[in-house]
Amino acid sequence: MKTGIELKVALDDLYARYIAALDAADYVSWLDLFVEDCIYRVVPRENHDRGLPLATMAAESRGMLRDRVFGITTTLYHQPYYQRHIISGLFIREAGADAVRTQANYAVFRTKQNELSEVFNVGRYLDCIVEEGGALRFREKICVFDSELIPNSLIYPI
Amino acid sequence: MKTGIELKVALDDLYARYIAALDAADYVSWLDLFVEDCIYRVVPRENHDRGLPLATMAAESRGMLRDRVFGITTTLYHQPYYQRHIISGLFIREAGADAVRTQANYAVFRTKQNELSEVFNVGRYLDCIVEEGGALRFREKICVFDSELIPNSLIYPI
Amino acid sequence: MKTGIELKVALDDLYARYIAALDAADYVSWLDLFVEDCIYRVVPRENHDRGLPLATMAAESRGMLRDRVFGITTTLYHQPYYQRHIISGLFIREAGADAVRTQANYAVFRTKQNELSEVFNVGRYLDCIVEEGGALRFREKICVFDSELIPNSLIYPI
Repeated sequence: MKTGIELKVALDDLYARYIAALDAADYVSWLDLFVEDCIYRVVPRENHDRGLPLATMAAESRGMLRDRVFGITTTLYHQPYYQRHIISGLFIREAGADAVRTQANYAVFRTKQNELSEVFNVGRYLDCIVEEGGALRFREKICVFDSELIPNSLIYPI
Repeated sequence: MKTGIELKVALDDLYARYIAALDAADYVSWLDLFVEDCIYRVVPRENHDRGLPLATMAAESRGMLRDRVFGITTTLYHQPYYQRHIISGLFIREAGADAVRTQANYAVFRTKQNELSEVFNVGRYLDCIVEEGGALRFREKICVFDSELIPNSLIYPI
Repeated sequence: MKTGIELKVALDDLYARYIAALDAADYVSWLDLFVEDCIYRVVPRENHDRGLPLATMAAESRGMLRDRVFGITTTLYHQPYYQRHIISGLFIREAGADAVRTQANYAVFRTKQNELSEVFNVGRYLDCIVEEGGALRFREKICVFDSELIPNSLIYPI
């Protein structure tokens, strides 16, 4: 695992590519940022803080994420919208020999067809990142969002 | 005082911990990011630009900040809300032997119970940072916000 | 051209100064971040993706940008508003000997007099940056914004 400034640069790059892929709806690149045996969850803060398991979106492998992408792009009936991610305050919560645990704030803006851009979902990422084949990838990504309202309209990954 | 890339990394980390502490309402960690003899102010841009002294929130020592925290967590009657900070464009305005003056843009989103997340307060930080006991801490933090409306509902630090 | 960590630091600094200058309406400093022979465009995503040429704002030299600034500050009749930029996810798409192509997400908040701050324009920058006289400057800056609504009220550069 990288360390020090080399790690910091690689982490910044990983998050930059994560949001660039998502906001371009480039799901092939997005999936490639996860290891096969990964966990991905989008959870309201209330539930996270109380240790409740309910998640708005959940996957326990890259295969399940691929299914979700298939749903989004092929079968799921929904009104399309653009996403735009902003990430800030990335820091390392715990650095191990094989993995680092990171945290960062995020804000996602949504733009529906013929509408103005609006705040969609804000919260924090609680992630676990490993090195695989020379590149950093997510082994775990928990998106804890602040609004207690569960947005039914949350279609795309956060 | 650190310099160059080492300083940049330490500054990024300081701001990351600042917003992580505030957004988790972890005021013990937040207070620890200030030196005892500190200045903290939240000021509307109009007043700041005209040199007017009126501040929406003001403290002239860590003790006063501690009082504010006591008010927030114990005595102040208010409807609670979550904050989520995003910081961007941090740069060093002036680097001295003992302190650096920095500037950064910020956006704070607010989420009230059973409501959607919304833009709450945006502006810039004008800070002075020193090294104390091996760690960077704020000696001065001026939060200059853009809206001329003074939000009475501003309860938590920005 | 700088490389590696030195380039990353210089790029972060360039973008920090770009948004600090714009949000302070300091157009002299802002113009100084472009080379004379530059391209600047603000384009809706729909048009950009379809290769359509229509732009909401366009300039093909620093002289044209200077004209725009003259319009904004002197002749253009408009209700003034504050801008506040947040940038995130900056990464290098292509690094050459003489120039680097970068991408970053941005969100701009607008604050009108006596109104609350609001989301104004979100999207991504597609930039080309060169070194001139020891400093990094924009040779090309394309601001691709997500909303299909063309904001007539877009007065200031993004």
